[in-house]
Amino acid sequence: MSSRVYLDWNATTPLRAEARAAMLAAYELIGNPSSVHAEGREARRWVEEARATLAAAVGARPRNVVFTSSGTEANALALSPGLRGRSGEPVQRLLVSAIEHASVLAGGRFPAESINQIRVTRAGVVDLDHLRELLAGGSPALVSIMAANNETGALQPVADAALVVHEAGGLLHVDSIQALGKIAFNINQVGADLASFSAHKIGGPKGVGALVVSEGLAGLEPILRGGGQELNRRAGTENVAGIAAFGAAVKAALQALPEDAKRMSSLRYDLEKGLCAIAGATILSKDVDRLPNSVLFTAPGLKAETAVIGFDLEGVAVSSGSACSSGKVQPSHVLSAMGFDPAVAQGAVRLSLGWSTEPEDINRALEAWRKLGNSLLKP
Amino acid sequence: MSSRVYLDWNATTPLRAEARAAMLAAYELIGNPSSVHAEGREARRWVEEARATLAAAVGARPRNVVFTSSGTEANALALSPGLRGRSGEPVQRLLVSAIEHASVLAGGRFPAESINQIRVTRAGVVDLDHLRELLAGGSPALVSIMAANNETGALQPVADAALVVHEAGGLLHVDSIQALGKIAFNINQVGADLASFSAHKIGGPKGVGALVVSEGLAGLEPILRGGGQELNRRAGTENVAGIAAFGAAVKAALQALPEDAKRMSSLRYDLEKGLCAIAGATILSKDVDRLPNSVLFTAPGLKAETAVIGFDLEGVAVSSGSACSSGKVQPSHVLSAMGFDPAVAQGAVRLSLGWSTEPEDINRALEAWRKLGNSLLKP
Repeated sequence: MSSRVYLDWNATTPLRAEARAAMLAAYELIGNPSSVHAEGREARRWVEEARATLAAAVGARPRNVVFTSSGTEANALALSPGLRGRSGEPVQRLLVSAIEHASVLAGGRFPAESINQIRVTRAGVVDLDHLRELLAGGSPALVSIMAANNETGALQPVADAALVVHEAGGLLHVDSIQALGKIAFNINQVGADLASFSAHKIGGPKGVGALVVSEGLAGLEPILRGGGQELNRRAGTENVAGIAAFGAAVKAALQALPEDAKRMSSLRYDLEKGLCAIAGATILSKDVDRLPNSVLFTAPGLKAETAVIGFDLEGVAVSSGSACSSGKVQPSHVLSAMGFDPAVAQGAVRLSLGWSTEPEDINRALEAWRKLGNSLLKP
Repeated sequence: MSSRVYLDWNATTPLRAEARAAMLAAYELIGNPSSVHAEGREARRWVEEARATLAAAVGARPRNVVFTSSGTEANALALSPGLRGRSGEPVQRLLVSAIEHASVLAGGRFPAESINQIRVTRAGVVDLDHLRELLAGGSPALVSIMAANNETGALQPVADAALVVHEAGGLLHVDSIQALGKIAFNINQVGADLASFSAHKIGGPKGVGALVVSEGLAGLEPILRGGGQELNRRAGTENVAGIAAFGAAVKAALQALPEDAKRMSSLRYDLEKGLCAIAGATILSKDVDRLPNSVLFTAPGLKAETAVIGFDLEGVAVSSGSACSSGKVQPSHVLSAMGFDPAVAQGAVRLSLGWSTEPEDINRALEAWRKLGNSLLKP
């Protein structure tokens, strides 16, 4: 597939060379990190090194990092009734923004009747006034708002939300999966009590994630029980090679971030300009701060399902909405939440860029769109 | 560590060459298996090929295989209140043998008050009469019995248990993690309704497992919700490379099984003979059928913690009880359940062999024991 153009980096990324090297080295480790002998201690060392790397990268203490098998698992672990801060009462209900990832919308272990959704604006940004309303007068809440939306790329006001939430005696979970490696992110600067991460969005392997919590957070109920791994917060033999590669990817991604962000921004500028010149395409969430790599666009009469297949046949991998939803193209719950009618929610295509995206990839994508825009949208 | 001797294969195994090759190839896959485009479909193909391999190996249909992040997660997923067979009522309580892995003893999503333990004999075999008693007259139960114990290696009467359980309108889950690749195992021949597996016990990577269910089983409640992965039974982007490697390991392990089992049996015979000739050592569960690779032994006055460290200093990696318990040497709940007093439960050492174990490894282990047996047990 060397002639293919991959513009679906928000779904998953290729493995970074640094992550591949770490995995290869970690394969030589024979031991189980829970074993007492030298082989076990060596495997343990690799896990702890990755833990320290991720902790440092996001402003946490290593002991507050819990490795999981995915961002989905990190989100599920985060949404734990009974969480409490240093001085607060346990949370008793859950507020999630309407544009969260499916794994957050699922609500973790909160019963459905204790979950409410926070509205977003037409531009795809969480409505803090509605958050204030929902918080007012109720029992302590866990609030879950993503740092950046995976479809539109729109950055969310998580630092402001943290102030609002804490003022009301609640806790804030930030799904930071799309933000890591694309914008600066630090749990202390945001004021997040919990934050989720995923390796495969930043050049690490699929099947590794992490939940990071702030110092002093208590009441995190494990989902997986049994062995004492991860300080009793997540049982099961660790994915040692995957975790080592996650650490290596974090290091590489953060080092490359300033340069990558600038380059992706510039390529995206060209991409958006080109897209909008054809078939009446418009960019969603265009007027708010967004991740530097993401474009979600639509055009009158566009059907995302057909468009994704059309792009694919032209050798360009793009997506519609979240890839995690089932392998089927479905109307975007994000666009529905933003107030768009079903025709638009089923007609938006996402192109997302990454560190190896080249100007030629943008040209190829625009070429495809020129072809498709002409044929697909014919009345 | 080339001069080290690794005899802790029940804790984890080195990666098989076939699994390493599959992982390396799978790294080149860019796509997310949930994506519609060619890159996504290619990643999906690798996952489905591994699923077909595991299914065929254990007698299941591919659609009844759910990949998880560990054996622990597979066990947790299996222990799902509300499970029901083709014609039965949903199970309402859980019976687990007293020698199950910690992840089964934890009970999954059954409330503690609905869980009972099935006794085992002094030889470490589940007492089917006690199982019958516990089943009699009660509500439909899910019963969880392992195929082979991870500490003693003792094979459990799972096929007989299946008859007893089904007769009583219940369902049987078999933790088959230690059995796979060491003895023949087929869910249909056993009559298991659910069976758990783990990649890293058979030469696959750490961080991959699977739950296999029988055709017609219903009511399996997912632990991880959100994306529609694994037919809505387990959300989260798949560990594509790990799953591909699991498939390759299954194929390699089952192909090598008859030969490996014979060779390990013969090496174990020498090992046990040698161990028992020194310091009054005795083998636990010696008179029942066991895995061909496992030896659990004790000696008067032996302290496992000191012994494991002693062996380690002599360059031999062995263990005490389950490695999954915390990295600390703890009294074995298995030996306690077998009726041994705490002195024995804290004084048993496990040596487990694998496909690359050589006669020289056995000699080195016996040499170490000769040295330790003399110094450790001095009054």
